Amino acid sequence: MITHSAGRAVGERLRSVNIYLITDSRPNVRPLEEFVARSIAGGVGMVQLRDKTLADRELLAAATRCAEVCRRNGALFIVNDRLDIALASGADGVHVGQEDMPVRAVRKLAGDEFIIGLSTHSADQIVDAQNLAVDYIGVGPVHETPTKPGRPAVGLDLVRYAASHSQLPFFAIGGLDAGNIVAAIAAGARGVSVLRCISHADDPEKAARDLLVRFPRRDDDRR
Amino acid sequence: MITHSAGRAVGERLRSVNIYLITDSRPNVRPLEEFVARSIAGGVGMVQLRDKTLADRELLAAATRCAEVCRRNGALFIVNDRLDIALASGADGVHVGQEDMPVRAVRKLAGDEFIIGLSTHSADQIVDAQNLAVDYIGVGPVHETPTKPGRPAVGLDLVRYAASHSQLPFFAIGGLDAGNIVAAIAAGARGVSVLRCISHADDPEKAARDLLVRFPRRDDDRR
Repeated sequence: MITHSAGRAVGERLRSVNIYLITDSRPNVRPLEEFVARSIAGGVGMVQLRDKTLADRELLAAATRCAEVCRRNGALFIVNDRLDIALASGADGVHVGQEDMPVRAVRKLAGDEFIIGLSTHSADQIVDAQNLAVDYIGVGPVHETPTKPGRPAVGLDLVRYAASHSQLPFFAIGGLDAGNIVAAIAAGARGVSVLRCISHADDPEKAARDLLVRFPRRDDDRR
Repeated sequence: MITHSAGRAVGERLRSVNIYLITDSRPNVRPLEEFVARSIAGGVGMVQLRDKTLADRELLAAATRCAEVCRRNGALFIVNDRLDIALASGADGVHVGQEDMPVRAVRKLAGDEFIIGLSTHSADQIVDAQNLAVDYIGVGPVHETPTKPGRPAVGLDLVRYAASHSQLPFFAIGGLDAGNIVAAIAAGARGVSVLRCISHADDPEKAARDLLVRFPRRDDDRR
């Protein structure tokens, strides 16, 4: 097994992230930089920019601004899908899906220090990911979500599977919010990816904090 | 002025290309590799893969196959828009539009040896391009084309402008075929980008040759 992230500082850092915020470039309530900064203040440890509506030039500009805000506020920053935009923006990493560039091709271009995340939707994909040069995986969708129409929910069983079979840090994703993340945490998730429950909130800082308090306290939680 | 390509072997090679074929991954008549090989046999000197319908994984696979066919047959291979796919596929370069990643960002990631092409649609953009680290420019659309709906044709005047103002090699593009490229050549084009007149032909080799014979003979044509 390739344990790409084993022993790397980034592996420890990824394990310390409870809340992984995914946002487009136009959050509902505030300008992007303020939204991201406030979310980080509330406890978001990693931010992903995912926006398929922008021309590449605008996407790169938004990613560059996000990367700067995240760096200044101590959060990791990841770009969805686009390795070129991720590299050019100064992001910490890229997140790819099963239909995106193969991890091996991404790793070859990105180098060893770059974070690569991979979406998984089945036990087989979780097992396969352990042999790829990825640093973390997403596991879901736990619940159905309008963000990914047509993708059936995998439920908490896949979170339990990941908790017992993934040596890689993983983030449960899909329709998670303050009302249901306790169940995901009970199923073994140490981190969750969220979109709407923060981006649709009037106060993103409070929304993030409402999630964070539901995780086990850090000093009780040796990772 | 940055004369990025001046003195580089690639500059000379680009100036020797008369026919620059742009194709998607599913040509009308034949499988992609055969279509590309036949087109090169007919005189195509550079091939661009432009396909916005594919998932990234399939796009990379198609680009990798194209790169291999072009290399084996002595043509240059360029990927449209996506630097990450271009780099991972082993392409010779990437072609970007005015709304894509800025040339400076592309050059920084791609290194000095990579070919960068840029679309231009006005005299100002042609002038601006001379100061960018690009290796060639596209100039058009000369005629209206269904491939780029909503973009007004710039006509032959812009080709004449490029011929007198561009130190970079340029390719006239937009609705060009065997019936009208003589006018573009007379306006100063040494190279043309074509899509349908080759991809919709029953015999791509013959279609390419029908274009090539309309260019001035090489031994009369010191470049």
